[in-house]
Amino acid sequence: MTITKLNSQAIVAREPVQLATPNWSLEEVQIGEPGDDEVLVELYAAGICHTDVLLSSVPPGAIGVQYPKVVGHEGAGVARAVGKNVHSVEVGDPILLSFDSCSTCEQCEASHPSYCDTFVPKNYFGQQESMKTGDERIWSHFFGQSSFAQYSVASKSCVVNVKDLIQDLSELKLFAPLGCGFQTGMGAITNITQAGPDDIVMIAGLGAVGMGALMTAKITKCKAIIVVDRIQSRLELAKELGATHTIDTSAADFSTLDVAVRSLIPTGASIAVDTTGIPAIIEQSIQSTKFRGKMVLIGAPPFDYKLSFNATEHLNSVLAIQSGRSILGCIEGDCDPRVSIPQMIQWYREGIFPIDRLVQYFDAFEYPKAMASLKCGDFVKPVLVWKE
Amino acid sequence: MTITKLNSQAIVAREPVQLATPNWSLEEVQIGEPGDDEVLVELYAAGICHTDVLLSSVPPGAIGVQYPKVVGHEGAGVARAVGKNVHSVEVGDPILLSFDSCSTCEQCEASHPSYCDTFVPKNYFGQQESMKTGDERIWSHFFGQSSFAQYSVASKSCVVNVKDLIQDLSELKLFAPLGCGFQTGMGAITNITQAGPDDIVMIAGLGAVGMGALMTAKITKCKAIIVVDRIQSRLELAKELGATHTIDTSAADFSTLDVAVRSLIPTGASIAVDTTGIPAIIEQSIQSTKFRGKMVLIGAPPFDYKLSFNATEHLNSVLAIQSGRSILGCIEGDCDPRVSIPQMIQWYREGIFPIDRLVQYFDAFEYPKAMASLKCGDFVKPVLVWKE
Repeated sequence: MTITKLNSQAIVAREPVQLATPNWSLEEVQIGEPGDDEVLVELYAAGICHTDVLLSSVPPGAIGVQYPKVVGHEGAGVARAVGKNVHSVEVGDPILLSFDSCSTCEQCEASHPSYCDTFVPKNYFGQQESMKTGDERIWSHFFGQSSFAQYSVASKSCVVNVKDLIQDLSELKLFAPLGCGFQTGMGAITNITQAGPDDIVMIAGLGAVGMGALMTAKITKCKAIIVVDRIQSRLELAKELGATHTIDTSAADFSTLDVAVRSLIPTGASIAVDTTGIPAIIEQSIQSTKFRGKMVLIGAPPFDYKLSFNATEHLNSVLAIQSGRSILGCIEGDCDPRVSIPQMIQWYREGIFPIDRLVQYFDAFEYPKAMASLKCGDFVKPVLVWKE
Repeated sequence: MTITKLNSQAIVAREPVQLATPNWSLEEVQIGEPGDDEVLVELYAAGICHTDVLLSSVPPGAIGVQYPKVVGHEGAGVARAVGKNVHSVEVGDPILLSFDSCSTCEQCEASHPSYCDTFVPKNYFGQQESMKTGDERIWSHFFGQSSFAQYSVASKSCVVNVKDLIQDLSELKLFAPLGCGFQTGMGAITNITQAGPDDIVMIAGLGAVGMGALMTAKITKCKAIIVVDRIQSRLELAKELGATHTIDTSAADFSTLDVAVRSLIPTGASIAVDTTGIPAIIEQSIQSTKFRGKMVLIGAPPFDYKLSFNATEHLNSVLAIQSGRSILGCIEGDCDPRVSIPQMIQWYREGIFPIDRLVQYFDAFEYPKAMASLKCGDFVKPVLVWKE
């Protein structure tokens, strides 16, 4: 590792003192030079996602996570140095950062990089090669980028050049969150379920993923879109964005969610997308689907939760797989960011993917405010701004 | 119910004296006239399927099953009387019988009759309207047909007219099993997974369903076909029919099935089809698939078995849904028999769906021999012949 004299402010996640409570602190770190397959990025902005919080608040060693680390995986900025094997970007180009992949395994070669053989270590673990503070090596390259820093070294695989897609650098903070949350929701509709005019889509959880799914379901002309959330303002916003039905779970007995869905649309949903990870909502969402329904699992349930279903005991039960239902995993919406990000930007230009109504900017130095907003759910997508 | 003077021999399933042991007896029953939407069939033959055994050996009341009943759901025969609403068949036409459906629900209208809203009652429970013995009403219309009888009243929805498809009536006994087992295996490949040249298909269990899947995977040019069974003669036959790899589980520790698969093909399978219902094989089959693999559940596991998987604990575990795997239910291969049966007959004529190598005929009056052969697995598809 060559650590240059480049100093950078970064939000460092230190070992959490309490389970599920991230322990973030603003610190000065030193950034190394990019390797042959890397890009030195000056970050302008980075969206905050629950995965940042989750993977910087689990106990050290759990699911391979190590500390100290810098998270952040919806970065946007400008390339300041470029390794010799990087041909997609030149110094000075504006770039968005998405997830990392190896580019060479069978899944990557088949344009399914979010199922890269090395997705987990590359994105969740990262490496210790390009960031340190004093003599202490920091785990960086989180999702190939660790974008909660003013500068970072990013893997070329996670870089999308947006030179020809943005009007000026001030748009970087708006488009930063396209790299993960919105893309995941979009891909759940376009890639995982290929939803169309015959579909009745149920979306649980109206964060960026849920809203991305909602806007895309509207674009693909789904027949009905039922949204489920506990926050009234999000439900209202969802209606404006195309939801045909809303279910408020703020005082909810989740065990009757399927009844609520069927009271709106008796046949049930043909597609259910769970972004909450709440076990009762996952199980109720499956029950809310009609025969041959598709259940898409996106939200992260508790680590020890096992989804189980009885395949035969109740042959006509709504939970039975004999009903022709399918249970589908979904990582990053099975998107190739080089395809999905330009698509979403184009939709934004056309006014049909209005992410400007969903983001809220925070000075990066005031990240605790952004974290608080994430927790209370006031804003769909808080974005940390490093540079205007 | 109008019971005519038409007497018929039938294999009547009486309340089982022991769990999972069917209690069949040959009895004389009286057959009613067909209703407006029904066909009186003179059966020439009927395949025996494990579902016949299963659904006539569970305790009365379990999953809705009642006794006495007549099972049999791969029937073939000749229409002898036709209700006034039946337009697809005339008296004297040779017909094959498949499963029953309502023709009017959303799934039926969308050409997915095996997910008919009333599939379970229509096919598994049947009705008491057209068969009796003395004063005792018999549950008939099993899968719309109850074809373990010389004569039966069948629902028009389960009837496929093969007048223009067969060369003579002697072929009825060969084509009888197309109505369920072979069709289910075929549809797992064509409809449920749409397998093609890029796919590596693993098939566990080489009964009619597994062999149907195998022949179809060969027809759709799958790259590799791994078959798993405990009977050497079936594995040998499967090789001749197109299997590229075989795994003999006769002395198997099923817990290493995934190792066996990956020793043959290191990447694992892209599609796994389970026809056994054995929990360890189902779980190992999921583990044997690569990222984005498809697991098709066909075999009936024990009634109390719950398939469960942890979605997050081991993010890179082969069981995690985050791997992009999907778990897919499959009833009757999601086939429309009016499409699938002519297709299979055409493939048979072309020599690429050689079911003549898979059937074994038994005089229907010697049904205990056929049952014994089913149990020991000597023959892939025993067929009861009522009339040559």
